[in-house]
Amino acid sequence: MSEPDPQSQSSEQISVVLPDGSELEVDAGATVEDCAYEIGPGLGRDTVAGKLDGDLVAKEEPAYDGAALEIITEGSDESLRVMRHSAAHCLAQAVERLYDEPKLAIGPPTDDGFYYDFDDLDVDESDLAEIEAEMEAIVDADYEIEREEVSVEEARERLADQPYKLELLSELAEEGERVTFYSQGEWEDLCAGPHVESTGEIGAVKLLEIAGAYWRGDEENPMQTRIYGTAFEDESDLEAYLQRLEEAEERDHRKIGNEMNLFSIQDVTGPGLPLYHPPGKTILRELESFVEDLNEDAGYDYVETPHVFKTDLWHRSGHYENYEDDMFIFDVGDDEFGLKPMNCPGHAAIFQDQSWSYRDMPIRYAENGKVYRKEQRGELSGLSRVWAFTIDDGHLFVEPEGIEHEVETVIDMITDVLETFDLEYEMALATRPEKSVGSDEIWEKAQSQLRSVLEHRNLEYDVEEGDGAFYGPKIDFAFEDAIGRHWDGPTVQLDFNMPERFDLSYVGEDNEEHRPVMIHRALYGSYERFFMMLIEHYEGNFPLWLAPEQVRVLPISDSNLGYAHRVANEFDEFRVEVDDRDSTLERKIRAAHDDRVPYQIIVGDDEEEDGNISVRDRFEDQEYDVDVDAFRAHLEAERGEQRTEPDFLQDE
Amino acid sequence: MSEPDPQSQSSEQISVVLPDGSELEVDAGATVEDCAYEIGPGLGRDTVAGKLDGDLVAKEEPAYDGAALEIITEGSDESLRVMRHSAAHCLAQAVERLYDEPKLAIGPPTDDGFYYDFDDLDVDESDLAEIEAEMEAIVDADYEIEREEVSVEEARERLADQPYKLELLSELAEEGERVTFYSQGEWEDLCAGPHVESTGEIGAVKLLEIAGAYWRGDEENPMQTRIYGTAFEDESDLEAYLQRLEEAEERDHRKIGNEMNLFSIQDVTGPGLPLYHPPGKTILRELESFVEDLNEDAGYDYVETPHVFKTDLWHRSGHYENYEDDMFIFDVGDDEFGLKPMNCPGHAAIFQDQSWSYRDMPIRYAENGKVYRKEQRGELSGLSRVWAFTIDDGHLFVEPEGIEHEVETVIDMITDVLETFDLEYEMALATRPEKSVGSDEIWEKAQSQLRSVLEHRNLEYDVEEGDGAFYGPKIDFAFEDAIGRHWDGPTVQLDFNMPERFDLSYVGEDNEEHRPVMIHRALYGSYERFFMMLIEHYEGNFPLWLAPEQVRVLPISDSNLGYAHRVANEFDEFRVEVDDRDSTLERKIRAAHDDRVPYQIIVGDDEEEDGNISVRDRFEDQEYDVDVDAFRAHLEAERGEQRTEPDFLQDE
Repeated sequence: MSEPDPQSQSSEQISVVLPDGSELEVDAGATVEDCAYEIGPGLGRDTVAGKLDGDLVAKEEPAYDGAALEIITEGSDESLRVMRHSAAHCLAQAVERLYDEPKLAIGPPTDDGFYYDFDDLDVDESDLAEIEAEMEAIVDADYEIEREEVSVEEARERLADQPYKLELLSELAEEGERVTFYSQGEWEDLCAGPHVESTGEIGAVKLLEIAGAYWRGDEENPMQTRIYGTAFEDESDLEAYLQRLEEAEERDHRKIGNEMNLFSIQDVTGPGLPLYHPPGKTILRELESFVEDLNEDAGYDYVETPHVFKTDLWHRSGHYENYEDDMFIFDVGDDEFGLKPMNCPGHAAIFQDQSWSYRDMPIRYAENGKVYRKEQRGELSGLSRVWAFTIDDGHLFVEPEGIEHEVETVIDMITDVLETFDLEYEMALATRPEKSVGSDEIWEKAQSQLRSVLEHRNLEYDVEEGDGAFYGPKIDFAFEDAIGRHWDGPTVQLDFNMPERFDLSYVGEDNEEHRPVMIHRALYGSYERFFMMLIEHYEGNFPLWLAPEQVRVLPISDSNLGYAHRVANEFDEFRVEVDDRDSTLERKIRAAHDDRVPYQIIVGDDEEEDGNISVRDRFEDQEYDVDVDAFRAHLEAERGEQRTEPDFLQDE
Repeated sequence: MSEPDPQSQSSEQISVVLPDGSELEVDAGATVEDCAYEIGPGLGRDTVAGKLDGDLVAKEEPAYDGAALEIITEGSDESLRVMRHSAAHCLAQAVERLYDEPKLAIGPPTDDGFYYDFDDLDVDESDLAEIEAEMEAIVDADYEIEREEVSVEEARERLADQPYKLELLSELAEEGERVTFYSQGEWEDLCAGPHVESTGEIGAVKLLEIAGAYWRGDEENPMQTRIYGTAFEDESDLEAYLQRLEEAEERDHRKIGNEMNLFSIQDVTGPGLPLYHPPGKTILRELESFVEDLNEDAGYDYVETPHVFKTDLWHRSGHYENYEDDMFIFDVGDDEFGLKPMNCPGHAAIFQDQSWSYRDMPIRYAENGKVYRKEQRGELSGLSRVWAFTIDDGHLFVEPEGIEHEVETVIDMITDVLETFDLEYEMALATRPEKSVGSDEIWEKAQSQLRSVLEHRNLEYDVEEGDGAFYGPKIDFAFEDAIGRHWDGPTVQLDFNMPERFDLSYVGEDNEEHRPVMIHRALYGSYERFFMMLIEHYEGNFPLWLAPEQVRVLPISDSNLGYAHRVANEFDEFRVEVDDRDSTLERKIRAAHDDRVPYQIIVGDDEEEDGNISVRDRFEDQEYDVDVDAFRAHLEAERGEQRTEPDFLQDE
């Protein structure tokens, strides 16, 4: 709750920075909306909210000197977020109307909608329609949404019946300060906003599900009732979203993973700890081998580091101070040990164990390294949130002037991977933040090399000013899957900090010790998360090169079993099985379809007599009188096209 | 200290079982030596000691009814052990003569010699010669070694100055019982024996080194001084041993591992936790890929299991009760988790997650699975004793009648591996022990199938009666390395217990549920230990297919650098480097030799002009005017011969 200084209100001027880099002078005390009107009256009228230094704020919030200001107008992603926040308020208002004194916790917008958490509320999914109807009545009533600043003391009185709100209030503001409330009709809430102007501006609303959630995400706290919903500008957007949701459920990797016997997560073995069954491990091994080919072609050397380290290492790397709560730590005798949350310190320790000359540089280490991060139990879900996951990790130790060449190769590798899986991608360059380590010179040199790579490759990219890590700039990839969902993708991250902490060096041509730059990169990121995404992206219909079973031979009757096995032998460079079960052809075809086998070879008396085969694909196309050699050549070609060979060379 | 029942001494007869299975009737109270005389006077005279149910005992020890009795005579491995135990006594006697009141701890024989632990003794390696001279004086004096039984009370008086001995005594015997002392000259010790008859029977003695050792191996206890020595029948045996020792030191994998940059174990990363550097990981990857080929050819499916499991799993598998002290266990919230000490329970959990029919059997899972065992810190050493190691693990789930076929394939795989590395091997069948789980029928069926495999393959093997695990019989391999050292090798282990604990089943042809048998097998065992053995076996001169760098091209001068790179490109299917350092040819050759690169290609003006190469191998053979294509073909052939392709088929 930043407050303008009343002394300076009338006389002083402040300056805010607009997204195009220009500066705008306004009177001290001017709100976000005032600034928008200052730019132009049209913009002023359309203003829904604003962003001050990246934080979404109400348009009534005063700007401050030096702030980066962005105006949020209708139709933007941020304005949808504002509207969903208001929808969350409608949800709470509806629940308070319908149920006896529920206690309100928090109710934020999310990427896909909103939720509100309640305590002392006994509802189940069958109640959602009634709550939704009440929300619609509130929207139809078109209540004005009013923002009001009150003193902490008054806020405390208004919230006397709301213990969770009181807890938030006590952390939010000190005695004598002021906080904001938003009200609509008879209902009000402690809230920083922003919100739309009236409930009538809320578009199409849908409640989705009820889940348990711990107060503040902490398992030690009571479990509350969370109601999830979403809201869109209009019915057709909502419908489209619900259809995508249904499609996503059909593709849910836990469902398909179970159907295809890819992996399991069991009570007896523990949460967030997947076991990969043979078909799942087959796919993982193909993924491993694909990235191994890329790494080898790009001149990486594989290393292997332990999964457990003395915490001395984590103190040296800085993970202990920043990451301790997420680490699995335990004592052995008088020493403390921790499972690794990242692979980089182990690789730095290997680099450090030897002395290096500029002639050896760059050094490139790769490892399929399992890491361990203690996520909240309640957050764990299938392969998307786990405790243990493997990164296709790579760390490069590079001379500062060699960054460009190495980053260029990494970007080639990443785009090769994303294109292999038919994923559309975008990229962004994140630059130096205010708090950072490393000299101006090295940041300048590094950032200009990253820009130069992107431009040299004619790649389109956004610049996210100040969004780099404190230890170096980075290039982030994001990609889109088959049903239009967006995912965070791989990252190329420069690091000036770790080489300092490990005192890494090499001897330059000048015979002096120099500090290398470290580059962190992964092509998939986490195998677990990438695998999950692939399962959903392909809906389990993996391309031939990845399919756990690539070809299945179906004899029409038992008398064709011998011929079926002879045909299968012709395909022994593929993962081929013969369905020798005592069953009808129809059922065998259905089983192969359910197992998502790319190709079924059907052999009966006709095929046996003619020495050929019938072929059926997953999408039920069938072809008769197919020559065995021709079909094998077809499969080889298909596999070869899908799994591209690395097309770049380390020494190009 | 088992005592015969005095009531039965004169009248009753007991029966002991001799190694050939025959029974010998003797008077109750007869000693081991009495039994030997009963068999024959010659054997009686040669008796040094005996074994009762596998335990080495003094020949004065009385036999008991039903005991398996073995007579130990001179010249056997066990008699050498007895003599070394007496040598340990000489060491303690010499130390007590030379130093002021050292406290005696324990002094057993070992596989290679003996040691004695002392407290309050301040010596270093420079004192060993003097102690050794005193030992020789004791041997020359030929003191009779006398065995004496005394009451616990008297023992306590005799040991009043020896606190460690008193501690042992208090655990060894209760009030009223009797214990044995052995004396020689002025010196005596609480000791169960057995020993030789006089100090003159001790052959050639050598003290080797001094180390610190915790009392009872427990880091919480005080550190004592351990003096290691060895003894042999005569000087020539001792000389041969010392030479082997020197050779082994030359080959020490820690020394070579450091020279070749294979791995490191660092203070900051922790004890027993090796980091594999690129050359070491290259060798490991070749080893992995070799065993992967074998596994795939034999119809194994790869799986992947977590490294951390909820301890529920370890309770179910029985590891918790039997293995807890060796496990890394920690709490997360209210649950207890443990790093896996073995891979089998994870594989059983995958098998259990699905339902199976006899048509699916056998199921064969493979995993390069990292396991964690908390060895004493003081025991950790290089790659031979570590905390974390990877097993090339395999578990088969087999119908009881299918054991023979599966074990036969496993034995083929193991012998394939051992022969690939030029290791001579022996094998032994270990059969049902007294305490065991599983019906007579299944043990009978299993053991006869194991015998049948070994006989069918015409393999020589020993039978170790009663030496199987409680959960099933097994076949153990032992092998010999290049300098004649013996190593425990792979094992094929049947298991009737784990399937019970996990309630594993499959539906048989009779439509009933059946219990599968589990087979545990590894071809290398631990990669760490096998790698260590290979380093020492080859003295770092790995065969071509394993060598981290296979070919190095040495340009004679900088002007030949271009040609050197062109030649290197001709060998790009090998791990090839160009030595482009500014250095003399002589130094480049020495460097390649030190790095143990199998082949050096030398190119100067002559070679460049003629378009050919000179080739030099690790053993300094050099050939001129070599054709590039011919040499590449030679390398391909050499690699192909060394890394044999699997020569068995799952469906043979």
